[in-house]
Amino acid sequence: MALSGVEVSKHDSKESCWVIIHGKAYDVTEFLPEHPGGMGIILKYAGKDATEEFEPIHPPDTLDKYLDKSKHLGPVDMSTVAKIKEAEDPEEAERQQRIADKPLLSQCYNLMDFESVAKRTMKRGAWGYYSSAADDEITLRENHEAFHRIWFRPRILVDVKKVDFSTTMLGTKVDMPFYVTATALGKLGHPEGEVLLTKAAKKHNVVQMIPTLASCSFDEIMDAAEGDQVQWMQLYVNSDRAITERIVKHAEKRGCKGLFITVDAPQLGRREKDMRSKFTDQGSNVQSGQATDTSQGAARAISSFIDPSLSWDDIPWFKSITNMPIILKGVQRVEDVLKAVEHGVQGVVLSNHGGRQLDFARSGVEVLAETMPVLRELGLQDRIEVFVDGGARRATDIIKALCLGAKGVGIGRPFLYAMSAYGVDGVDRAMQLLRDELEMGMRLIGCTSVDQLNPSLVDIRNLGSHVTGVPRDHLGHKIYDPLVTPGFKPPKSSKL
Amino acid sequence: MALSGVEVSKHDSKESCWVIIHGKAYDVTEFLPEHPGGMGIILKYAGKDATEEFEPIHPPDTLDKYLDKSKHLGPVDMSTVAKIKEAEDPEEAERQQRIADKPLLSQCYNLMDFESVAKRTMKRGAWGYYSSAADDEITLRENHEAFHRIWFRPRILVDVKKVDFSTTMLGTKVDMPFYVTATALGKLGHPEGEVLLTKAAKKHNVVQMIPTLASCSFDEIMDAAEGDQVQWMQLYVNSDRAITERIVKHAEKRGCKGLFITVDAPQLGRREKDMRSKFTDQGSNVQSGQATDTSQGAARAISSFIDPSLSWDDIPWFKSITNMPIILKGVQRVEDVLKAVEHGVQGVVLSNHGGRQLDFARSGVEVLAETMPVLRELGLQDRIEVFVDGGARRATDIIKALCLGAKGVGIGRPFLYAMSAYGVDGVDRAMQLLRDELEMGMRLIGCTSVDQLNPSLVDIRNLGSHVTGVPRDHLGHKIYDPLVTPGFKPPKSSKL
Amino acid sequence: MALSGVEVSKHDSKESCWVIIHGKAYDVTEFLPEHPGGMGIILKYAGKDATEEFEPIHPPDTLDKYLDKSKHLGPVDMSTVAKIKEAEDPEEAERQQRIADKPLLSQCYNLMDFESVAKRTMKRGAWGYYSSAADDEITLRENHEAFHRIWFRPRILVDVKKVDFSTTMLGTKVDMPFYVTATALGKLGHPEGEVLLTKAAKKHNVVQMIPTLASCSFDEIMDAAEGDQVQWMQLYVNSDRAITERIVKHAEKRGCKGLFITVDAPQLGRREKDMRSKFTDQGSNVQSGQATDTSQGAARAISSFIDPSLSWDDIPWFKSITNMPIILKGVQRVEDVLKAVEHGVQGVVLSNHGGRQLDFARSGVEVLAETMPVLRELGLQDRIEVFVDGGARRATDIIKALCLGAKGVGIGRPFLYAMSAYGVDGVDRAMQLLRDELEMGMRLIGCTSVDQLNPSLVDIRNLGSHVTGVPRDHLGHKIYDPLVTPGFKPPKSSKL
Amino acid sequence: MALSGVEVSKHDSKESCWVIIHGKAYDVTEFLPEHPGGMGIILKYAGKDATEEFEPIHPPDTLDKYLDKSKHLGPVDMSTVAKIKEAEDPEEAERQQRIADKPLLSQCYNLMDFESVAKRTMKRGAWGYYSSAADDEITLRENHEAFHRIWFRPRILVDVKKVDFSTTMLGTKVDMPFYVTATALGKLGHPEGEVLLTKAAKKHNVVQMIPTLASCSFDEIMDAAEGDQVQWMQLYVNSDRAITERIVKHAEKRGCKGLFITVDAPQLGRREKDMRSKFTDQGSNVQSGQATDTSQGAARAISSFIDPSLSWDDIPWFKSITNMPIILKGVQRVEDVLKAVEHGVQGVVLSNHGGRQLDFARSGVEVLAETMPVLRELGLQDRIEVFVDGGARRATDIIKALCLGAKGVGIGRPFLYAMSAYGVDGVDRAMQLLRDELEMGMRLIGCTSVDQLNPSLVDIRNLGSHVTGVPRDHLGHKIYDPLVTPGFKPPKSSKL
Repeated sequence: MALSGVEVSKHDSKESCWVIIHGKAYDVTEFLPEHPGGMGIILKYAGKDATEEFEPIHPPDTLDKYLDKSKHLGPVDMSTVAKIKEAEDPEEAERQQRIADKPLLSQCYNLMDFESVAKRTMKRGAWGYYSSAADDEITLRENHEAFHRIWFRPRILVDVKKVDFSTTMLGTKVDMPFYVTATALGKLGHPEGEVLLTKAAKKHNVVQMIPTLASCSFDEIMDAAEGDQVQWMQLYVNSDRAITERIVKHAEKRGCKGLFITVDAPQLGRREKDMRSKFTDQGSNVQSGQATDTSQGAARAISSFIDPSLSWDDIPWFKSITNMPIILKGVQRVEDVLKAVEHGVQGVVLSNHGGRQLDFARSGVEVLAETMPVLRELGLQDRIEVFVDGGARRATDIIKALCLGAKGVGIGRPFLYAMSAYGVDGVDRAMQLLRDELEMGMRLIGCTSVDQLNPSLVDIRNLGSHVTGVPRDHLGHKIYDPLVTPGFKPPKSSKL
Repeated sequence: MALSGVEVSKHDSKESCWVIIHGKAYDVTEFLPEHPGGMGIILKYAGKDATEEFEPIHPPDTLDKYLDKSKHLGPVDMSTVAKIKEAEDPEEAERQQRIADKPLLSQCYNLMDFESVAKRTMKRGAWGYYSSAADDEITLRENHEAFHRIWFRPRILVDVKKVDFSTTMLGTKVDMPFYVTATALGKLGHPEGEVLLTKAAKKHNVVQMIPTLASCSFDEIMDAAEGDQVQWMQLYVNSDRAITERIVKHAEKRGCKGLFITVDAPQLGRREKDMRSKFTDQGSNVQSGQATDTSQGAARAISSFIDPSLSWDDIPWFKSITNMPIILKGVQRVEDVLKAVEHGVQGVVLSNHGGRQLDFARSGVEVLAETMPVLRELGLQDRIEVFVDGGARRATDIIKALCLGAKGVGIGRPFLYAMSAYGVDGVDRAMQLLRDELEMGMRLIGCTSVDQLNPSLVDIRNLGSHVTGVPRDHLGHKIYDPLVTPGFKPPKSSKL
Repeated sequence: MALSGVEVSKHDSKESCWVIIHGKAYDVTEFLPEHPGGMGIILKYAGKDATEEFEPIHPPDTLDKYLDKSKHLGPVDMSTVAKIKEAEDPEEAERQQRIADKPLLSQCYNLMDFESVAKRTMKRGAWGYYSSAADDEITLRENHEAFHRIWFRPRILVDVKKVDFSTTMLGTKVDMPFYVTATALGKLGHPEGEVLLTKAAKKHNVVQMIPTLASCSFDEIMDAAEGDQVQWMQLYVNSDRAITERIVKHAEKRGCKGLFITVDAPQLGRREKDMRSKFTDQGSNVQSGQATDTSQGAARAISSFIDPSLSWDDIPWFKSITNMPIILKGVQRVEDVLKAVEHGVQGVVLSNHGGRQLDFARSGVEVLAETMPVLRELGLQDRIEVFVDGGARRATDIIKALCLGAKGVGIGRPFLYAMSAYGVDGVDRAMQLLRDELEMGMRLIGCTSVDQLNPSLVDIRNLGSHVTGVPRDHLGHKIYDPLVTPGFKPPKSSKL
Repeated sequence: MALSGVEVSKHDSKESCWVIIHGKAYDVTEFLPEHPGGMGIILKYAGKDATEEFEPIHPPDTLDKYLDKSKHLGPVDMSTVAKIKEAEDPEEAERQQRIADKPLLSQCYNLMDFESVAKRTMKRGAWGYYSSAADDEITLRENHEAFHRIWFRPRILVDVKKVDFSTTMLGTKVDMPFYVTATALGKLGHPEGEVLLTKAAKKHNVVQMIPTLASCSFDEIMDAAEGDQVQWMQLYVNSDRAITERIVKHAEKRGCKGLFITVDAPQLGRREKDMRSKFTDQGSNVQSGQATDTSQGAARAISSFIDPSLSWDDIPWFKSITNMPIILKGVQRVEDVLKAVEHGVQGVVLSNHGGRQLDFARSGVEVLAETMPVLRELGLQDRIEVFVDGGARRATDIIKALCLGAKGVGIGRPFLYAMSAYGVDGVDRAMQLLRDELEMGMRLIGCTSVDQLNPSLVDIRNLGSHVTGVPRDHLGHKIYDPLVTPGFKPPKSSKL
């Protein structure tokens, strides 16, 4: 017999929390502290119908996968459920107007343009989730700026009529030397989610890495691939290795061509911007003093979704359960790259998780410059494929990384923003812009193929410099007049 | 027989200055130039009842301790004292409104958040006293920024399920590798003063260092401790060594576990922001041209409270009067750390007094990086405990210092601000936030205990770089257009 | 028989595009994608009279030179052509007012002043074309800033009553050690175009380099020269070497004294500011989604105007067809300077094309500092003349380059801006200002002739430093109060 | 017979220019182009009474000294001279109000405070003259910032009860290790001019250097000295060596104790801020296109007042005409310091003329750090006294220079500003503030006398670093959100 809305509505607290999804009730009380998005957002819908909020950001198989069957309470008589009447939201109305007024897709000339459009057209909470990073977000910015400390030493008078920037990653021939790296919760940005990235990747023949925390289910994303399109899998290792084994074997069976084990996130990073944006969302529902202890929740969450005890000792086990190439994603110093070689994995991604984990982690490209000379000196440069991600926004960034020895560059947020702002067309254009920039960049640096890129083409003397200016003395600087250019006649002359 | 209010009111000038405190009159004429807070603030109450102003910032035993009995003039017939009718203060009303509107404690996600709340809710003069520093406040800022020149080289694939950041300082086991360092005048921020810090320190099992210039009396702060809670004592050495001896022996008797002798303040620093904020307080009372010569006052003050003749030769005497470990607080170069070892003290604090003494003193953490390699080379690293303070705001700052060899990190102002904004709950939350950050930081850097922290985990190539950018040429920079992102349609479209 | 306006007006699309110029119709359909200015601007006039738009920016012989005779459709009966009635343009009216109010020429005290006036008096699209550069315009700014990392070590007590800054470039005696380098589309800034630069160059006896993409025709510019005035020729090498040969031989015959082969532009750079300013120009004509694919156009364009296959192998051929000195313009690393010596060319220009081609190319003056010590060590310094351009705005910039070994410094945009703002008088004054600055600079550095300039007069320790500051932490920096200077009494006192 | 006002008024142009000063007429036609202040300012009064403008900025003996007797036209019948009725000047009225509202002298806590008051209370043109510097004023700012790249390594536990910062310069015992350096046109800031500096210098027992271009006459300034007060003389060497000899011998006879020969100004610098402020002064009098050619004027001026042919060969002659110690003011590299030693002069001032001559000259203190190690290595450190000036604002700046080996530090503009804002009391307080700061600084660095200051007390690793940050990419930086602190409730809550 179906539950009544009144019955469900009684379970509206941390002590007992039921929610309705697609006409069925679920007891999520025990799950609350494990919810990666924080328990606050669930409590907002405690005892109510949460379908609208739930749907866009969870894969369809979420409840089956993560909630014990015993918590599935069965169907609800929806006619007895009180309708939530959404108050009119002036902020949302303004956002809709901005969406109506947004620039034409053809006005976006580079990857940052999509970011600027997405910032103004995405929901605030979604923007907060995508754009936030750890602590003071210094590594987030550093990832971008590190590329600015790499300058070119281009060759001239090279016949560059035909330039070819295709390359090979983990045995797969790709048209461009980047891949779509894994990013979580695609439906926050666009209702269709990660499958749109799959389509664009196909069109431009680049590899997509499927995120563990995708909004679409893993199979949906695999199903969206066409022909011989290659996809990789990003893995957060579950404390329950049986679950992990099942996931990995399923991926291999479905045809995944690479297993990227996340090694820089034994605990999910604290992102204060994201926390603040969620907090405000709750609005007046929060009672003074009764704030939810989100840190507590995060602490428990890690014990199930992400295993903090993952270590080098687990690598042989992974090799035993899969034939996919194994790549460690999130390596951050040359010593660990050498360890990776010793452990016989096929690759590493030098990455700091987009600045979302440890603030003051160095940028991937700086670690790359530390790593490759050592590998070359030890004759190991061909024993492992070295990828890098974080901060790349221009084709010149990609070319710089390749000059330093990277096999490929992962790009994440920019494609998310392009998708959020313009859907699949946005991602398509973003990739096309990179293609145009790559062609231009290869020509201007005087190389016609990726294998010609080498360290002599870049000047990285200051790549490792982490300087701050001496703090300004405000008294002194306030006093100096800025120089001015000659003045035009004052506007009153226009009255003549 | 009690003095009449009229009689007292005649002594309202620098020549003869009486004040009433708790119904008793005191002649403070000779004390005026020695008042650490400047004579202006006393003169404002010359001939009047100063109880309200006096109470929050002076320990109860102040008058007994510092004013000769002959200046205690006895009881006043308070019915004969004219009431001061405070004019309504619009600035204060606005402040009260801000206090009413202040963020929930749970909205503070890091130590700087407390600072931002305190800045807007504290009295202006109190904020001025806490936040000000020497000269152009460049060292104040540098203390914070120096940590930004230290970057991490984290290890991955380490089992970090359990991380333990407890450690030992001067023989005391503490739960976290920081201590509450000494800061003056706690009641400026909160009516209960330093005892709140005592309570929070107990809860989190960290050590509190008791300041010489506390608002609460030394015994009040000791009394506030519970069980086996450990406290240290910060000492300004008085010119009268008998007073110093009495203070030190009393502290030891009361159970203090460390004597931190301040060595970076032979003269109390000039802090212009503080001076300006006090000046304005005096409002219209100041006659043109008749300004008090505060420098004169400061010059005399040092001769009594703080002994500028303190030198290495005094160290043996200190060792002779106490069994407490002796730590020199304010060491600023490796040569003096080596001297400290020679003199057989138990520790040093590399510190510049929070930027309040000598501007352009280097940050403690920079001196640490200079010191430890020398100690290690000479095999002296275990002969002395090296602490550091100044500028730490994140657990990552603490971890950086420990990687470089510090035993512990002193944190001062942040706890004062947390206390000023939210009382003991604020300090508690501040420490809890540090605990969460420490857990996260240890995990992300790949270490499970404090003894694993080592120099290879940080990149400090530019820690010692004190660069300023070449001054901008305003003409050139004014002319270059900043690039823009694509424009949204103009707002008028919203009229459709 | 003349074509009718109605007939022409039917050809108004990408599929068939006719335009009327000076009463004659032309079929430019096939030419559309090759138009260096983008096809959008032509399509705006498809089927219409484009004379007004065409005239100011194309040399008179353009149509004859670049459009096959078969596309010349013959005369149009202009009485049958509908008049385009220009809507009143408030932006243009404001610009005209600014022109009326502009500063006196005598108020311009340095080269940047002209830039500031031009910015406010030029048409937006013209300013966009002149001022834009590649990608994020970082190299554009770096060109200017690199000079700021070069500091002087002047000599004193040298008799500098007479200073002589004349020098010799490619055998020509010039009065000042700079030349007018090639810049495109002079009529965008001034209706008379490049011939004004010719006149000013004559007056000050400096060399003008004639641009391939000038608005005036090559012969017009040669004809504007007087007496023994020396001019050089800048060359974009056409894919059709026959065309190139014809152009080069014509130039030599007309008396050109140097052939500057552009080697840094196998493909014309993408300049987003320029693209954005053009896009907006099209206004409401652009249909959503139907944007022109400008990248496609550019890709084709390069195949005709600029040959991307140009290589070192072509150098002997150039030497075979001309006796003019051959100089490679756009060399960007010392290795290629050495190659240039090997190939027996007479000179190189160390240049990144004014930042318009490859962003993150190093500044010419930095490459100069890399080049000259190597040349000297190999004893090759007299085998080749080394020029440099990009970013010079002050005579001190020129002097710095000469100290480092440059033969001469190319200056481009500043003269364009002076011309755009004030015509030939502006260019004249700009050169006079440089002359005054040169005299002052030579005196103050303690040298009386150009041959005395040497590396010991400059400090270039940080010329090659490409640092970025560690990203600011906004929380920390928001909290520190800037120090303030003493406050004046509030304005109300003025009521007394 | 007296001239009539009508007669004089006919000579009102560049062709024939007469002016009336104190009731006498002068023909200044030939002098126009030589006027150091530009001819424009004279032409404004051509044919008129210029007494009011002339008086405050010219020494009383100016006309006798610089204008040939034949140009002294004799007395004018002042009753026939038309009175100039000054229009009411709203800008001046506002300035007078600001003067009325200015802060109390006791509110000035450091030297920069005077600068901030002077900026708002001085006439615009006067401020422009004092504060302006060469070209882009980069060296002006660098002079200040260079001190910020010097950090302290203070000693602790030194008995600093008594600190003595007196020292000896050129044999004179002074109370503080700075001197008042020469600055021009003191009456622009205060009607009494340089004699006020003399009085303050006496009070604090420091040396004053008398400027060649003082507003007071040389004798007036000497006369203002009391007792055994020591003064030095700054010299611009006149092309007519007879004039120079007369000046030098007169100075020696009057008791000057040092001859500082200016060697960094073979030509007076162009200061654009100053030019712009003068230009605007002329207001509507300037006809379009008829601008005065100021550069031309400057070019001629140098030939008389300042001899550009001054060279090392002149040094023996100076030694032959005076027994005063000879010091070269404006030396800018170590090579020239060594030459100075060879030529047997007694001292050098490492200086760039306050940034007013050659932009991108290095700061004096940077040259000091280059110089002293070389002198010490060659054993020459006692053969010459090395002074430094430029940019010092804090006692810590002075102490830094002394640590590096300077004998004394010249301070110029700060005293001018103190004088302009508050007269002699201002200068007195400025010196008292430096005295207080010196006492504090010596104590905090752990030194009790000037001879203890040594290089180990400072960290100058980056003093010679002239870095600029890589230009920002505006797109990237616009997109990153700054982090925010927790929000207070919106203001409307205050309505409750």
